[in-house]
Amino acid sequence: MASSDISSIPTPAHCTADFCLIPIGTSSPSVSAQIADVQRLIEKCGLKYVMHSAGTTIEGPWDRVHQVIGQAHTLLHRQGIVRIQSDVRVGSRTDKEQSFEDKVNKVRELLGKE
Amino acid sequence: MASSDISSIPTPAHCTADFCLIPIGTSSPSVSAQIADVQRLIEKCGLKYVMHSAGTTIEGPWDRVHQVIGQAHTLLHRQGIVRIQSDVRVGSRTDKEQSFEDKVNKVRELLGKE
Amino acid sequence: MASSDISSIPTPAHCTADFCLIPIGTSSPSVSAQIADVQRLIEKCGLKYVMHSAGTTIEGPWDRVHQVIGQAHTLLHRQGIVRIQSDVRVGSRTDKEQSFEDKVNKVRELLGKE
Amino acid sequence: MASSDISSIPTPAHCTADFCLIPIGTSSPSVSAQIADVQRLIEKCGLKYVMHSAGTTIEGPWDRVHQVIGQAHTLLHRQGIVRIQSDVRVGSRTDKEQSFEDKVNKVRELLGKE
Repeated sequence: MASSDISSIPTPAHCTADFCLIPIGTSSPSVSAQIADVQRLIEKCGLKYVMHSAGTTIEGPWDRVHQVIGQAHTLLHRQGIVRIQSDVRVGSRTDKEQSFEDKVNKVRELLGKE
Repeated sequence: MASSDISSIPTPAHCTADFCLIPIGTSSPSVSAQIADVQRLIEKCGLKYVMHSAGTTIEGPWDRVHQVIGQAHTLLHRQGIVRIQSDVRVGSRTDKEQSFEDKVNKVRELLGKE
Repeated sequence: MASSDISSIPTPAHCTADFCLIPIGTSSPSVSAQIADVQRLIEKCGLKYVMHSAGTTIEGPWDRVHQVIGQAHTLLHRQGIVRIQSDVRVGSRTDKEQSFEDKVNKVRELLGKE
Repeated sequence: MASSDISSIPTPAHCTADFCLIPIGTSSPSVSAQIADVQRLIEKCGLKYVMHSAGTTIEGPWDRVHQVIGQAHTLLHRQGIVRIQSDVRVGSRTDKEQSFEDKVNKVRELLGKE
């Protein structure tokens, strides 16, 4: 693979990313105000998403999904939070398009809950 | 801190752990059968839990919660899956006991959804 | 925040991301050949990076860092791996520019190892 | 699987866990003092470990490894840090015993660096 080839490799057209964002050095152990601000941002980004107690799952093109997570960092930095850490679980697959709801539903089906 | 002091440090009495387990080298990209088996195990452990599309959240004493995740690894190893990786987000706090539902509810409240 | 404001929020100019990439459904529990391919890709991207036993840490502009991780997914998808999951720990800070080496060195200094 | 069977399932005899611990609500964006304290704890636990810029990797029996991470939480809680979050990447395998050094060495070998 020549060096020139790298820039021609695209990022995945679709991915599912679950992220948990943590503001550091905020003096308060509560982060719900910041998480609410991030939710308001995500609501406006136009991507499919769902919030749960351990993070937020977003679906969409790789670049767009990671842009939104980066914008969430910037949003909180602008509020004066100088350090932010996110844990992101991101998956891509080429065999089929599977939404995050499909994944849960498939497991529930196997469990005979549906 | 003397070496003898280490064993006397307890683990947290309560924690919330969100884990995403991935079987490696399974020949199939689908992992829902394995996740369903893990869910059946967790259902029997007696701890409060909830499954979402990016993982499963469990609440309880630190040692017990991590024992259950370890048992999930063993369960799948016994099925012949030789390698398993889990990503775990685990939190503990001493200021109050906050369930994973409380966390989501607090953010929703701030968002004016409740 | 109006909807139109979202696109104007930039992503962080600098971040440190540590990622652990897992190919799923590969039939072999060994993933070192794939990790080596990812390393070759990263070597060519021009960003500062270091590999360790639990992942690879990359430093650079938010968009570029996440583009490279996405390209790593695409590279392996092109080899026929249909499903890939990465765990990413990404941090940004505005108070100072701190390289990943600085972080380790500061802790080592506190430990009196240097 | 009867309910009585659960308690008889052991946790893995060996695992490799890489963890990144974040104190929340500390008023300072610097966490190096806390990380140094955690390192001192780990040094005394007797398990094989290595610190890198994005976390610390520990090897050993599943229960012992997770006990140490829990003790690290408790250690910092006792210093007055009321909330702590760790991200843990934990892997177990039954096909061979592979240390974290073996993993890096195998990839480096493929890359022709050794």
